[in-house]
Amino acid sequence: MSDHHLGTDAIHTVWDNGLRPALTIRPGDTVTSGTLDASDGGVARRAAAGELKGPPELVALAASDAFPEREGPRGHPLTGPVFVEGAEPGDVLQVEILEVRTAAWGWTGCRPNGIGLLDAALAEEGLQPYTHLWDLRERTHTDFRPGIRLPLVPFPGVMGVAPAAPGPHPTAPPRQVGGNMDIRQLVAGSTLFLPVEVPGALFSVGDLHAAQGDGELSGTGIECAGGVTLRFGLERGANLSTPEFITPTHGGTSTRWHATTGHHPDLMTAARLALRALLRRLQARGLTLEEAYVLASACVDLKISQIVDAPNYTVSAFLPLDIFLEE
Amino acid sequence: MSDHHLGTDAIHTVWDNGLRPALTIRPGDTVTSGTLDASDGGVARRAAAGELKGPPELVALAASDAFPEREGPRGHPLTGPVFVEGAEPGDVLQVEILEVRTAAWGWTGCRPNGIGLLDAALAEEGLQPYTHLWDLRERTHTDFRPGIRLPLVPFPGVMGVAPAAPGPHPTAPPRQVGGNMDIRQLVAGSTLFLPVEVPGALFSVGDLHAAQGDGELSGTGIECAGGVTLRFGLERGANLSTPEFITPTHGGTSTRWHATTGHHPDLMTAARLALRALLRRLQARGLTLEEAYVLASACVDLKISQIVDAPNYTVSAFLPLDIFLEE
Repeated sequence: MSDHHLGTDAIHTVWDNGLRPALTIRPGDTVTSGTLDASDGGVARRAAAGELKGPPELVALAASDAFPEREGPRGHPLTGPVFVEGAEPGDVLQVEILEVRTAAWGWTGCRPNGIGLLDAALAEEGLQPYTHLWDLRERTHTDFRPGIRLPLVPFPGVMGVAPAAPGPHPTAPPRQVGGNMDIRQLVAGSTLFLPVEVPGALFSVGDLHAAQGDGELSGTGIECAGGVTLRFGLERGANLSTPEFITPTHGGTSTRWHATTGHHPDLMTAARLALRALLRRLQARGLTLEEAYVLASACVDLKISQIVDAPNYTVSAFLPLDIFLEE
Repeated sequence: MSDHHLGTDAIHTVWDNGLRPALTIRPGDTVTSGTLDASDGGVARRAAAGELKGPPELVALAASDAFPEREGPRGHPLTGPVFVEGAEPGDVLQVEILEVRTAAWGWTGCRPNGIGLLDAALAEEGLQPYTHLWDLRERTHTDFRPGIRLPLVPFPGVMGVAPAAPGPHPTAPPRQVGGNMDIRQLVAGSTLFLPVEVPGALFSVGDLHAAQGDGELSGTGIECAGGVTLRFGLERGANLSTPEFITPTHGGTSTRWHATTGHHPDLMTAARLALRALLRRLQARGLTLEEAYVLASACVDLKISQIVDAPNYTVSAFLPLDIFLEE
């Protein structure tokens, strides 16, 4: 059993089974990887260029991490790929998440015509582009503003192996082989099981989130750079149909929740109805539309309450009330 | 402030704002209502007719609750309606859930062409009609079989007020005014907020579930008769767009979870992919397809992990591993 290290020089921005492995390991080995944020340094460059608002100390902290823009295809900067000796199509790659370390700062953004759940609807209400900077130096929690404090529960938004289909494939959508799944419960102490489609599996990791609600509503969690330590194993011929995982956490922690509901034949629409009602609750507390949206993305959970009472299915959005310190 | 009681003679099986109120109360009053199970006694009648399999003592217990079949429209048997003095369209009815008491037994069912999430797909795999009986006399937990124990967390599947649109309306789909929302977090200690659409609000309750996962996957939770105690309040002109609630619970309890994932442009399909993989995990533990399906319906939670990584969105199905006592 060996311990390996991969730096952020081993970055690729597409899935492609033709990529040259950055590292070859054996089952049982651990790998500690440095990772870059989803914007590939873009937010740090904007901070350095004076294009971001926020507390000056935090903007300066972000600016200090700026590096030159990468040439080539845009996509999540992923660290890897790692070639696992003996891994063959039909096997299952076990990825034990031992540690997730975040950088000193992170960001959550929204914009009128991006990928967020309500971007189109909120554009009509005047949604402006907004990037919120978070101070992550306390490690256990971060203050959105005085009186609103979120616990930090970091996880890698992207973990996956190379698809059998010849690449390149964009990093944004997750697939049967994993990838940008953005599953907030994949924290340290979890084990992810991925279907292997090519010899060596070709595993990569990236896109750390210091916190995120189930749904990633505005399109971003608390995005940050950092590092992860993973232990790899192989299960021969276990043939998974889709990624699975074992986790010690079910969701967020709070003693009370305020939930809103959406009821509609289309689950996507039901989710939008629930989220719009929830943003109104946050706006009623004095947050701007943009602040409400990015805060929700960082901590609000979407649950499918029922998926059987046709023609209307129910999605509920849960806001943890413990984030409000004064209550 | 008065305490009122409503028996199971005050039953209606459609939503209709023309129904005569069974009770008139004032804001601040409490109402204790007896409720019938979603089958309106149908499962008890089948037990009495010798049509159900299960432990003889449990079948006899179910049979002892049989009563004659109701004439008129089929639908959830709901207790009410309760007329709240002073409630007007645009107000919000506050429903504080003080206590939920279940009967001594409950049931969960599946069938090949019913309403369940995988009914059509599993029919092709030979799914048979199945009704599982649960012993609820311990109140805190129930054993699915030796070694598999579920905590009981009872809630009313249906709470709602009459729609403004002239009735009758079927009880199955939930609406903007609530109804069959099947939200498992509406336990004792929660407060539900419902938009009032007609004078007096005309509130009704029914369809208790002793336990259910987020999703109600096979179409039924642990269905049972019982009773609920609710305290009512009014918020003038608060104009909700959709039901909301405050709850002390976020979801189920377990120290470890096994989760499966589905990734697809359609959330419904993503949920089906995740559930099918999860049922395989339960079948691998020796459960029949039918047992796996109804057990999942009683305890597996569907979460929308991400709803922004187009074209594939991610639904995860969470199985609480603490239900397996031997591990």
